[in-house]
Amino acid sequence: MTDRYRIGVLGGTGAEGGGLALRWAHAGHEVIVGSRSIGKATAGAEALNQLLPGGGNIRGATNAETAQAADIVVLTVPPEAQAATAEGVREHLEGKLLIDVTVPLVPPRVDVVRLPNGESAVLALQRKPGPGVRVVSAFQNVSERHLKKLDHPIDCDVLVCGDDAKARETVIGLARDIGLRAFHAGALANSAAVEALTSVLIAINKRYKVPASGIRITGVPDAGKKE
Amino acid sequence: MTDRYRIGVLGGTGAEGGGLALRWAHAGHEVIVGSRSIGKATAGAEALNQLLPGGGNIRGATNAETAQAADIVVLTVPPEAQAATAEGVREHLEGKLLIDVTVPLVPPRVDVVRLPNGESAVLALQRKPGPGVRVVSAFQNVSERHLKKLDHPIDCDVLVCGDDAKARETVIGLARDIGLRAFHAGALANSAAVEALTSVLIAINKRYKVPASGIRITGVPDAGKKE
Repeated sequence: MTDRYRIGVLGGTGAEGGGLALRWAHAGHEVIVGSRSIGKATAGAEALNQLLPGGGNIRGATNAETAQAADIVVLTVPPEAQAATAEGVREHLEGKLLIDVTVPLVPPRVDVVRLPNGESAVLALQRKPGPGVRVVSAFQNVSERHLKKLDHPIDCDVLVCGDDAKARETVIGLARDIGLRAFHAGALANSAAVEALTSVLIAINKRYKVPASGIRITGVPDAGKKE
Repeated sequence: MTDRYRIGVLGGTGAEGGGLALRWAHAGHEVIVGSRSIGKATAGAEALNQLLPGGGNIRGATNAETAQAADIVVLTVPPEAQAATAEGVREHLEGKLLIDVTVPLVPPRVDVVRLPNGESAVLALQRKPGPGVRVVSAFQNVSERHLKKLDHPIDCDVLVCGDDAKARETVIGLARDIGLRAFHAGALANSAAVEALTSVLIAINKRYKVPASGIRITGVPDAGKKE
C-alpha cells in the first residue's frame, strides 16, 4: 500500500462514500466518516465496521471535525450539497488534498448528462477554497454496488483529474490500495468528462438492464504498474 | 452486416472520416467521401481505394453532392467547420440520418476538455436542421490510427447518443459492420460526455506515451449480441 493516511470522508454515511470508507479502512488506512449529524455519523461508522473482518476502527464525526482531523478529505455528498459542504469545512482544508467524488446528477433523469454552469462541478469547487487546497476529482464512475462487497473485484478504472500531478499520483495510489486501476486523466477541467460519463453509465444500466456498468481504458499496457 | 447503405462522409478526406469511409467500404457499403473541393475529394477517394484489397469503389464529391446522394450522412469535419458544413448541406438532410463525429478540441491544448457553449456540440447541430433529420453522435473515441489499418482489431467501444432509439440502433449496426462493439448511451445530450472523453484519452496518450488509448464498457455481458 501507499503511505498510511487519515482519510476523512464527508458524506461517508452515503452509499458511495461509505463504500470508499470501507475499502480504505480494509486496506489499512485510518478512516473517519463525516455527516452533518454526529448521530448519523456514529451509526454509519458502526454499520461499516460490522462489514469489516474482525471489526473495524472507522469512527464517525461531524463533517467539520472530520475535515479538521483528516490528512486527506474526500467529498461524497449529493451534488446539491457539494458547494455548501466544502464551504462549511473550508478553514480545515488549507494545505490538504481534497478529493471530490461529486456527480452532478439531476433527478429524475439521472441518465441524462447535466453540465452545471456549463462546466465541471469540481472547477467551481477549486476556485472557492483557495490555492492552499489541492483539489483532485476521482471515483465518480465506480458503482457503490461494487465497493461495499469487499471480496468483489471491481471491473472499472478510475480517471483522476487535477491540476497538480503529485496530488493526482497520491489519489492513484489510494485507488490502487483498494484494488482499482487508476489513470492520470489530465487537468481538473477534464473532470467534466468523467462526471458526465456517470450519466452515460446509468443510461447503459437502464437500457441493458444491468446493475452497474463501468469503464476500462485500453491501449495503455503499463498503467497497472507503479511509476 | 446490416442493410447496405449509401454512406456520405463529409470531411471524408480527413483522418477520422477517411478511416471510417475505408472501413465501411471494406464492409460492403457504398461510400462517398465529401470535401469542399471536388479535386481534394476525388484524390482522397482514390487514396482510400488504394488501401482496399482489390481496389475500391469509394468515390469523391463535394460535400453538397455527397449529402444529396447519401442515405446516411456522416459529419467528420474539424469542430470550427461543424456548424457551417451542416448548414451548407441542410436542404439535403431532410428525412435522413446524420451521424456527428465532431469533437470540440481547441488547439493547442487538445488534452483539455472544452464544452462549447457549456453543452454538447451536437445539441446545437440538432436544433438547426429541424425535426426531419435524425441526429446521432458516435465514433468520437475511436482513434484514426486504428481505423486506417484494416487488419487491426480495434480495442475501443463506441458510445452512441441520440434521442431516437431506432436511429441509434442503425448506427450501432454500422459500428458492428466495421468490427466495433457499440452501446446505446442515452440521449443526444449525453454526447457531451463522449466528446469530452476524447480530450481525456488524448491526455492519457500524452501522459503514458501511447499512440491511441480507448475505452471499453464493462458489466454488460450481452452487449456484443444483436438485439
